[in-house]
Amino acid sequence: MRISQLSAASGVPIPTIKYYLREGLLPQGEQTAATRAEYDEAHLRRLRLIRALLEVGRVPVATIAKIIAAVEDEDMPVHTMLGTAHYALASPAEPSPGDAEHVRARERVEALIAGLGWDVKPEAPTRDELAEILVRLDQLGMPATDERLRDYADVTMRLVSEYDMALIPFHGPRETAVETLVIGTVLYGKAFDVLRRLAQESESARILGT
Amino acid sequence: MRISQLSAASGVPIPTIKYYLREGLLPQGEQTAATRAEYDEAHLRRLRLIRALLEVGRVPVATIAKIIAAVEDEDMPVHTMLGTAHYALASPAEPSPGDAEHVRARERVEALIAGLGWDVKPEAPTRDELAEILVRLDQLGMPATDERLRDYADVTMRLVSEYDMALIPFHGPRETAVETLVIGTVLYGKAFDVLRRLAQESESARILGT
Repeated sequence: MRISQLSAASGVPIPTIKYYLREGLLPQGEQTAATRAEYDEAHLRRLRLIRALLEVGRVPVATIAKIIAAVEDEDMPVHTMLGTAHYALASPAEPSPGDAEHVRARERVEALIAGLGWDVKPEAPTRDELAEILVRLDQLGMPATDERLRDYADVTMRLVSEYDMALIPFHGPRETAVETLVIGTVLYGKAFDVLRRLAQESESARILGT
Repeated sequence: MRISQLSAASGVPIPTIKYYLREGLLPQGEQTAATRAEYDEAHLRRLRLIRALLEVGRVPVATIAKIIAAVEDEDMPVHTMLGTAHYALASPAEPSPGDAEHVRARERVEALIAGLGWDVKPEAPTRDELAEILVRLDQLGMPATDERLRDYADVTMRLVSEYDMALIPFHGPRETAVETLVIGTVLYGKAFDVLRRLAQESESARILGT
């Protein structure tokens, strides 16, 4: 299809498509004449992925670019590619790592992961991300109890193994594997978050009897 | 304490504190001289709340301002205040509401909420927020099954009633009630999300045998 048809099918304006082409988020179309290129279903699907990450997940363009670079680097083994994409989604709040509070919280995170027997790399940015949340909760006088963290962890592991991981074609095409992981992480994460807010509203209405 | 001491205690630079004062995010200190004002623990706590929402929750300043305006409007009943604060946290992806796909997804959301027996207002922005996520998942070829949505909903309701709602002082001070709700929604929501990414990494390592 032509760029105008790609724009109509995806709802993405032509200048935005050209921007994604320049930034390498979208692969070039097949050049059929000096000023004409052909695009296909793969381009349409990539555009939908970009828009879903941007609009629903609020994932920054630079992060999306990192994920796509990992997909397109054919020399990168699948597990490294998935890890790279996954780590790109982390957004630790500017941590205060020298800080004694952060160091203590980080030790709690290590103990939690060890206690769960989870296999997480020492350099995973998620460790600091969780530690910084624990610091903020402490400062705000709403510390996370061990019981609550452990319960959250058990629930999330059940959901991850039952749904997220069951769908990833680990030995299939690179692009499909990373897409499934990223969509699962971002969009299903958002779905869970929205359901949580719906549950909070419902419980709050029940308690206040409105 | 003086503004310089408030800055040192909170780690927030003085110009930023002055910006929050101008924007009404932080109440004015007690004027003790023409160019001197006194601040107290309540200011420090408010600053920590603002920073946690901004840095951990990535909640925009305009949203924080809406939440604080609801807290400070003493004429607003507690349940309206909590609802206002809660709805401010919703961030529906520019929905395409006239769109047939969105309308169908919205009907699925209504059926889900009715099936769960949840008490959610018809105008809750969370309904459209969830519908739009369902549209994107469909478009990306990873549709959410009824079973998965229902399972997510049941899990989240248990966690909400066991932890989030148990902590909110519904009949206590306005500021504390809304703070507890917002911190619970944003920071514990983020904690769950990070634990989910940790679980994904661990499961992925197990499956790929690395």
